Amino acid sequence: MSSEKFELDGQFIEKKALKYEGKAKQVFATNNADVLWVHYMDQVTALNGKLKEDFPEKGHFNNLISNLLFDYLTQSGIANHWLANISETDQLVKRVDIIPIEVVTRNYASGHFVSRFDVKPMMPLTPTVQEFYYKSDALDDPFMNDSQILALKLATKEELTDLRIYARQVNEKLVALFKNIGITLVDFKLEFGRTADHQILLADEISPDTMRLVDQSTGESLDKDVFRKHQGDLRVGYQEVLNRLEQFLNQ
Amino acid sequence: MSSEKFELDGQFIEKKALKYEGKAKQVFATNNADVLWVHYMDQVTALNGKLKEDFPEKGHFNNLISNLLFDYLTQSGIANHWLANISETDQLVKRVDIIPIEVVTRNYASGHFVSRFDVKPMMPLTPTVQEFYYKSDALDDPFMNDSQILALKLATKEELTDLRIYARQVNEKLVALFKNIGITLVDFKLEFGRTADHQILLADEISPDTMRLVDQSTGESLDKDVFRKHQGDLRVGYQEVLNRLEQFLNQ
Ligand SMILES: Nc1ncnc2c1ncn2[C@@H]1O[C@H](COP(=O)(O)OP(=O)(O)O)[C@@H](O)[C@H]1O
Ligand SMILES: Nc1ncnc2c1ncn2[C@@H]1O[C@H](COP(=O)(O)OP(=O)(O)O)[C@@H](O)[C@H]1O
Ligand SMILES: [Mg+2]
Ligand SMILES: [Mg+2]
Repeated sequence: MSSEKFELDGQFIEKKALKYEGKAKQVFATNNADVLWVHYMDQVTALNGKLKEDFPEKGHFNNLISNLLFDYLTQSGIANHWLANISETDQLVKRVDIIPIEVVTRNYASGHFVSRFDVKPMMPLTPTVQEFYYKSDALDDPFMNDSQILALKLATKEELTDLRIYARQVNEKLVALFKNIGITLVDFKLEFGRTADHQILLADEISPDTMRLVDQSTGESLDKDVFRKHQGDLRVGYQEVLNRLEQFLNQ
Repeated sequence: MSSEKFELDGQFIEKKALKYEGKAKQVFATNNADVLWVHYMDQVTALNGKLKEDFPEKGHFNNLISNLLFDYLTQSGIANHWLANISETDQLVKRVDIIPIEVVTRNYASGHFVSRFDVKPMMPLTPTVQEFYYKSDALDDPFMNDSQILALKLATKEELTDLRIYARQVNEKLVALFKNIGITLVDFKLEFGRTADHQILLADEISPDTMRLVDQSTGESLDKDVFRKHQGDLRVGYQEVLNRLEQFLNQ
């Protein structure tokens, strides 16, 4: 179990009330209004929650992978919410107001993109495709374009420009990283938030729950598709991704 | 019946083989490779053809309304494919290679926009919403964003910029025109094509089949929604639109 207190930059951060339980994480308030305590759960969902299962240790993989990736992105100069790794399953992050737009980047055709446009799976996409989805479980996360987002006042024109630039930078950094460990980054989803002083920060998680990763030597999925497609125990792939990242980043 | 020959700028245009029969129009080749002969059918479809019915005179209304609107847009300086009105149901147009993107403009929330985002019907949309749909019956006309269109090579970046500018100009002109005859232009769909010399031209039709029009005094639909929603005989509204346009434009 995670301890209920953690020392961050000489200040004790104390875990307080549960603020929000999502499909993958529990988010707790702390004694510091700008800091949240995130617990990664051992649960996996797909199809907007319609498919759901418990996998002991899954939270552990996603937390550790997310930590490694946020740390790597910080070192690559990409501002994000990550503050500290507390335990195998918990982390501290800067509190932001999440912009209710999921930013999807696609380097290769997969999933919905393939069925929607009837293209060959793994067709390379040039230029890289960027998509915005309205983060709303009630509406089933509808795909949106800029003018719809502006008319519904979900974000400003300047913010959409920033989201696109940040997503492109994250993509370049992650593609390079995964290439080094023999993995193709097919597509992934990012969330961003606004800080109290109006800065846009990369937030949420970056894990095999939110990316499609393919082993370059075997062609096998190392991500949530294994669960979506009932192809076995997703933890095998998650463990593999964690191992390779740890070995490469801590070398 | 339409005559099978028509004099255009001193040249005889002769109707040749049927090239394409769509859901609303038949398109015939002519003795001039740059000219097409379009026949508006008395048929109406909805839900991508799943709903279908015959309405005697419907082709007549759409042809005459389309003629009036293309003529008005030409006079407003907007380049389009219209060449001549041949008969009550037939017209001559410049042949273009249709860009497979339907350009939808929304001044107020209606139809899919309302169900997709759960907003109030007729909510004003500022800025005006512009949407691109892939013109593909097989794929059910999927909604697309710019990066998807570029990755699938359906149009170039410059063409998308042009489509947006032209659609905005058409919208401004049509909103003003319909306002003069007591009608609110809620939304509409345009198609564009490329000429042999790479000019982009407004093409296809502009009719109550492709616009949502609401009578400002009664709040009633004067368009295909009457058919989609089984609210009576759509021809009543189509006739009304034609009458008001004729009276205003020929005054
Ligand atoms: N730094 C942050 N500040 C505030 N909220 C955050 C932050 N990072 C992530 N969140 C939010 O925490 C919630 C919990 O995550 P998750 O379980 O993945 O939820 P969901 O079911 O919405 O995907 C999400 O709504 C996510 O947007
Ligand atoms: N100027 C033009 N040149 C070539 N094709 C055109 C032109 N104007 C319209 N078309 C095409 O004519 C076809 C017939 O119209 P319609 O019956 O409305 O077909 P659909 O079922 O595709 O909507 C459409 O594919 C339309 O794109
Ligand atoms: Mg989530
Ligand atoms: Mg049509």
